[in-house]
Amino acid sequence: MNSVERFLAACARSPVDRTPVWMMRQAGRYLPEYRAVRERVDFLTLCKTPQLAAQVSLQPIDRFGMDACIMFSDILIPVEAMGVPLAFTDAGPSLEGHIASQADVDALRIPDPREAMPFVMETLGLCARALAGRAALIGFTGAPFTLATYIIEGRGSKNLAAAKSFMYSQPRVFHALLDKLAAVIAEFAAAQAAAGAQAVQVFDTWAGELDPASFDEFARPYQSKVIERIRRSGVPAILYVNGCAGVLELMAATGADVLSVDWRISLSDARARVGPEFALQGNVDPTVLLSTPARTAEAAFAALESAGPTGHILNLGHGILPQTPLECAAAFVGAPKAAVSA
Amino acid sequence: MNSVERFLAACARSPVDRTPVWMMRQAGRYLPEYRAVRERVDFLTLCKTPQLAAQVSLQPIDRFGMDACIMFSDILIPVEAMGVPLAFTDAGPSLEGHIASQADVDALRIPDPREAMPFVMETLGLCARALAGRAALIGFTGAPFTLATYIIEGRGSKNLAAAKSFMYSQPRVFHALLDKLAAVIAEFAAAQAAAGAQAVQVFDTWAGELDPASFDEFARPYQSKVIERIRRSGVPAILYVNGCAGVLELMAATGADVLSVDWRISLSDARARVGPEFALQGNVDPTVLLSTPARTAEAAFAALESAGPTGHILNLGHGILPQTPLECAAAFVGAPKAAVSA
Repeated sequence: MNSVERFLAACARSPVDRTPVWMMRQAGRYLPEYRAVRERVDFLTLCKTPQLAAQVSLQPIDRFGMDACIMFSDILIPVEAMGVPLAFTDAGPSLEGHIASQADVDALRIPDPREAMPFVMETLGLCARALAGRAALIGFTGAPFTLATYIIEGRGSKNLAAAKSFMYSQPRVFHALLDKLAAVIAEFAAAQAAAGAQAVQVFDTWAGELDPASFDEFARPYQSKVIERIRRSGVPAILYVNGCAGVLELMAATGADVLSVDWRISLSDARARVGPEFALQGNVDPTVLLSTPARTAEAAFAALESAGPTGHILNLGHGILPQTPLECAAAFVGAPKAAVSA
Repeated sequence: MNSVERFLAACARSPVDRTPVWMMRQAGRYLPEYRAVRERVDFLTLCKTPQLAAQVSLQPIDRFGMDACIMFSDILIPVEAMGVPLAFTDAGPSLEGHIASQADVDALRIPDPREAMPFVMETLGLCARALAGRAALIGFTGAPFTLATYIIEGRGSKNLAAAKSFMYSQPRVFHALLDKLAAVIAEFAAAQAAAGAQAVQVFDTWAGELDPASFDEFARPYQSKVIERIRRSGVPAILYVNGCAGVLELMAATGADVLSVDWRISLSDARARVGPEFALQGNVDPTVLLSTPARTAEAAFAALESAGPTGHILNLGHGILPQTPLECAAAFVGAPKAAVSA
């Protein structure tokens, strides 16, 4: 099996020769070759320059040979395309959303993704050509709830107090915002599949901060819309939620092919709860990779053991940390091969 | 039933006339009368001045009449008593732990709580006398894992990267630190019970950031030591973990009387998973209280409905936020009475 076959077979819960592996944020700051590119261009320019974005997408594949290549981009790109001014500083993203009323939501644009974000589809095209089957190509998008929290908070937030306060105080306006985001995101994801993405991951990173009833009202229906559109495009949909232990069944109800779970739940528990119909992705704690290659391999082996051989894509439970030593990243990516030969 | 009877009956899963209620961090910054005291003294002085600490402990009872009064203090007080310099700034706590080796752990003191922290026991005594049965008096302590993360990080941390990296790299030294903390904390909790606390809550706030296997190795055994000591003191033990959905059964394995859960799991799910042997405390999302009194009451009613009438203490899923409107706090505290009369 090559990496593409292995990855797609795992998504489809078909037998594999070994578990495929990749890492969230694998194209990123822990790599010296990524930092070298970033010395020349700022983050947003990198996202919008297909040749450079493709270059950094491929860097981890060239170095570690993981089974999947996720395109380099940012979840906030479509938010900017909807008319929300976006900037990145050392402290993270900064958005000028100023959403306070239905009129503010109405003023947001519904762009054609190919016109408003052509660089994303070009990046995918360049990656697909350069990979030539060496690794599966993954596109991605933020999910409506997570994007709405950024729009309302204006930046990253610890407890989402402003966004949730808005959500609980003005649920109808919040739903209107989610609905508009879902329309944009669904077409954006479909355009990615058409441009060469062999799977699309939907990041609802912060939806795990919701209680289950609120998740069911404000996150799940909009995840479902995006996921249905991805699956109609003919590629598997991966749904990621950080802190998913309380809402795993609701994630499954979206019909995603792959549920990407964080480390706060064991993969065997996750499997017991969702049954055999879903592939699982995850779920090593990224902080383990701050220790030693041996301890990292041990954690990866434990995840492989806990998930079993079928319907599992080895990954981290959240993005790789910038301070991760390269030898620990290598130990992680090498674990499935080592487990088979052991 | 008076509040003390009601609270202790709920801890013991005995019938109650209505569900008792209190709020984590109820003695805190959302109260103008608390802010007035803090204008005169800094945070640590307030913790160490029994008359003032008792005064702010009682403020929420006088205003809202909740069923339990938690003493005002800070989880890091015993860490300072072990010899770690501690300060509080606007950015939160700052500790000079510098734990890098077994020798550093060996250098930490095991203080007699009555000698090193007499002000805590005096605060409890003053509260007990002033309450005279109006509300149950709750003492508290941080749990070893959470305290160890503060000692190693030196301050609050988003992802506990330094503490977990240390834990995965030097597990034996980390265990030695946890063991020493457990010895101190267990006697500290027992001293609180002797001084008048009618229940003791163990805050392992950040243990929910661990994967279940690591929770079972680094958090649960030390929680158990503290909880056993509390129960031997003749008062119920309450165990709180933020983000507990993946480790609830492990929390139950500590033998705590009450499991205090956050909002990311529904109380009905929690009940189904742990069975009838435990009381549950929680679990409204504190951000709901940033909306309106009506929406707050709705969330409180949903929690009461989800938990059922027996073995439940209504609370938030984490501490009340400083920006919470007083009328929403009032709506929350009033919900159990309103539910009975409805």
